[in-house]
Amino acid sequence: MSYKVLRFFKNRSTLLRLHNPVVSYNFTKCIATSSQCKIQEEVAKLLALKAQLAPEDAAPQKFSLKTPKGTRDYNPQQMSLRNGVLDKIVTIFKRHGGECIDTPVFELKDVLTGKYGEDSKLIYDLKDQGGEILALRYDLTVPLARYLAMNKINSLKRYHIGKVYRRDNPAMTRGRYREFYQCDFDIAGQYDPMVPDAECLKVVTEILESLDIGQYVLKVNHRRLLDGMFEVCGVPSDKFRTACSAVDKLDKSPWEEVRNEMINEKQISPDAADRIGEYVRLNGGTELVEKLLKDEKLAKSKAAIEGLEGVKLLLEYCELFGIKDKILFDLSLARGLDYYTGVIYEAVLTQPIKVGNEEQTVGSVAAGGRYDNLVGMFDSKHKQVPCVGLSIGVERIFSVMEAKLAAGVISVRTNDIDVYVASAQKNFLEERMKICAELWNAGIKTEQSYKKNPKMLNQLQYCEDNGVPFAVVLGESELKRGVVKVRNVTSRQEDEIPREKLVEELKARIAALSVKDVNGSA
Amino acid sequence: MSYKVLRFFKNRSTLLRLHNPVVSYNFTKCIATSSQCKIQEEVAKLLALKAQLAPEDAAPQKFSLKTPKGTRDYNPQQMSLRNGVLDKIVTIFKRHGGECIDTPVFELKDVLTGKYGEDSKLIYDLKDQGGEILALRYDLTVPLARYLAMNKINSLKRYHIGKVYRRDNPAMTRGRYREFYQCDFDIAGQYDPMVPDAECLKVVTEILESLDIGQYVLKVNHRRLLDGMFEVCGVPSDKFRTACSAVDKLDKSPWEEVRNEMINEKQISPDAADRIGEYVRLNGGTELVEKLLKDEKLAKSKAAIEGLEGVKLLLEYCELFGIKDKILFDLSLARGLDYYTGVIYEAVLTQPIKVGNEEQTVGSVAAGGRYDNLVGMFDSKHKQVPCVGLSIGVERIFSVMEAKLAAGVISVRTNDIDVYVASAQKNFLEERMKICAELWNAGIKTEQSYKKNPKMLNQLQYCEDNGVPFAVVLGESELKRGVVKVRNVTSRQEDEIPREKLVEELKARIAALSVKDVNGSA
Repeated sequence: MSYKVLRFFKNRSTLLRLHNPVVSYNFTKCIATSSQCKIQEEVAKLLALKAQLAPEDAAPQKFSLKTPKGTRDYNPQQMSLRNGVLDKIVTIFKRHGGECIDTPVFELKDVLTGKYGEDSKLIYDLKDQGGEILALRYDLTVPLARYLAMNKINSLKRYHIGKVYRRDNPAMTRGRYREFYQCDFDIAGQYDPMVPDAECLKVVTEILESLDIGQYVLKVNHRRLLDGMFEVCGVPSDKFRTACSAVDKLDKSPWEEVRNEMINEKQISPDAADRIGEYVRLNGGTELVEKLLKDEKLAKSKAAIEGLEGVKLLLEYCELFGIKDKILFDLSLARGLDYYTGVIYEAVLTQPIKVGNEEQTVGSVAAGGRYDNLVGMFDSKHKQVPCVGLSIGVERIFSVMEAKLAAGVISVRTNDIDVYVASAQKNFLEERMKICAELWNAGIKTEQSYKKNPKMLNQLQYCEDNGVPFAVVLGESELKRGVVKVRNVTSRQEDEIPREKLVEELKARIAALSVKDVNGSA
Repeated sequence: MSYKVLRFFKNRSTLLRLHNPVVSYNFTKCIATSSQCKIQEEVAKLLALKAQLAPEDAAPQKFSLKTPKGTRDYNPQQMSLRNGVLDKIVTIFKRHGGECIDTPVFELKDVLTGKYGEDSKLIYDLKDQGGEILALRYDLTVPLARYLAMNKINSLKRYHIGKVYRRDNPAMTRGRYREFYQCDFDIAGQYDPMVPDAECLKVVTEILESLDIGQYVLKVNHRRLLDGMFEVCGVPSDKFRTACSAVDKLDKSPWEEVRNEMINEKQISPDAADRIGEYVRLNGGTELVEKLLKDEKLAKSKAAIEGLEGVKLLLEYCELFGIKDKILFDLSLARGLDYYTGVIYEAVLTQPIKVGNEEQTVGSVAAGGRYDNLVGMFDSKHKQVPCVGLSIGVERIFSVMEAKLAAGVISVRTNDIDVYVASAQKNFLEERMKICAELWNAGIKTEQSYKKNPKMLNQLQYCEDNGVPFAVVLGESELKRGVVKVRNVTSRQEDEIPREKLVEELKARIAALSVKDVNGSA
């Protein structure tokens, strides 16, 4: 027998996943590195034996009952939280004239190719089943650019909320999944400098304030200024992007690490790196812009001046919008994505969020910037449609709220039922049904038990568990007198109401309720 | 050169798609049928030549700017219509206590295997990129069953609206796509017979009435009755399902065709087919149930009696819910899906919908039934959770409404802006920005031009094109006097309002507006 082989692999810490279709892949890799043909033979024998032992067709259907790696179901509580958050965000998108669009969850693979640099390896491909070669969308920005170019649209203010897909290493405890929501607002069109850009910042502040998730700062920078800064620090122009991706790590790593990466991995000279180091530790407001405009080195770069003039104008507009106290001009903000061409920004929570006794550092909750060249990549004549946009980090926000929910800090109703129709005695199903129909027809959110003869206690318990405010309680003696009891579930107060006035009475009581659930929605 | 081969394929009407990755697939098929090895050789040469001529890496990136076959983008008008329809449907799901869940758009392939019979070939598989073998969900029912079994949930009333995927031959003009929305409501749990089933029918009627799409009939039947009927007609039990799928075609085909299919394709005896023919032409109400309960043949079948008793009880409950006039007990209703075990139903519009001068036959707009065994397929101990549910045919409803929209029968606003801040003179951007911020902060849906000095005419035109009811018009002389003009866009009436009362005044005017758009939403 081939247990020898088995042990060999185990000894090399290679997981032998006999029941896993990737087994051949793992073996192949291993063999390629070890170059031992003998192993290959033994493995083939082993697999042949395995095939004999459990032919796939004959085996009983067995599978692990789970969702795919990096994905999850959303239960009613989670959906209630999510819908509450998304409703608030959409309200603000609409307040600014946002129109909603949707695009297919998959695109022709070619549409996504060449848009995400190194990250392209994270794209989910569909199997070639004959026909077109497809892949799941990686974000909502590239589909927007494809949509604008395909339909020859020159201006659009749109929002789009949808799931996107990345074959990333999921860190689910930190709210990072392979399937997750994006929530984007973008303004496309040829307009005057910084006017739509400033409105995007205003939208971010309105959303973060309406979600009430704590203190935040909205960092801004400009791609042209970064380019100019690299230029005057002596970075060759073909290394601007790679320098940018190094600087982008400054929110997580100290300068020393970033400096080492620049010098050792990106082949940027130590002198240049040190000059960059001087700049990227700067942050402030308009006074910093003014100071940098007078910086002798930066003044030599057209790009730097353009960037600085842009930031200056943006800060003026932020002042007019009354949000300047939230804005921090920060030269260390770089943003990884290649496609940005102008202003870039990122909102960061400045305090950890308390969940029970634990503190959770959340970090970035919104980000975006200007990308003027992306639409042109899809147009046969490279016609540009300038765009600026923002993305709300809804998954991080959800994960904070879910943690709060789990810790009992907040609560949420998963159904909105206002009235439960109950009966204290047997054989009242028919009467309950008639009353339910009457209430439903009047638009009243109503439930009843699906059992013919439910126990009174269970019915009242259901109301308490689900936060149902009112119960209609049917009883023989009351019905004979033409009345029903209406019970306030919280106070346990019961009143007799004439049967024919029931709808009217319930409507009045529901309207009078000023109970607001955590979503703030009705 | 191999132009000979090229001509050969063209002559055989085989499309030679040199720029298409499926080329090898098409060739292989062709070769397999012709068995001409010589062709294979020539093709190989041709492909080698092609590879030399245009190596993939060197070729400029070219692709057709389109969405994948059978999919589409939804523009703001379509989304506005859709969101309006879905809002109404969700309102009714919530009125009945429905809770919202969501599941990943893909599942482990094994979860979907063996649930859809022949239609499994329509499932979209993801490419094996190492890791798990995944496929896009085909409906929302199997994910619900997986969710219930995985989380050991015994009862749940849930709704779920999401996209599902089928590699079907799209008939997009008739509203059939490869990516489309499903909109499901299901009640899971062990309850008394027909109580939740009747509520599902009530939900369907409420939805169809709230959508106001015309007269409809809600056909009901019972799988046990169908089984009993086939039994007493002499169909062997292993042919019940196939007989069912033949009967299912009666809504599209005349009885003669269905009879022929039964006899010639399904090997059902002509006698049995004729007996089935007698039954499936029957439809009616409670009186038909009573008549069939006395039918000598059916009385011999336990299944038939169970089915009939079920329908009888269901009709009683429908009477209590006040919807019996919408219900038609119809023995020809069969429903294709294997997993139904009890009552089945389908709502059909009885009149074609008029769109301009054309009439459109819509057919089925909602359907569902009881499936008591599906959850058990996912449970290691085969523990059952009985379920009954309904699916609203939202795509058909959308396509009717889109046709109406295109014909100008209905109109829809794509943004909800209430106020546009305009200026008649140059250099008012700063003042406009301040006022916009003030209105946004007060929750007023406001827009302005993103240009520094927009033309007055363009600004007012924007309001008219987008149905914006009010414009705030800034002017130098007014601002000096501490007032601004508020213009009613429709009536063109302008009033001077003190600057400090602007928010208050606009709020009052917006509240007074009783304009309802086609969605009926604010």
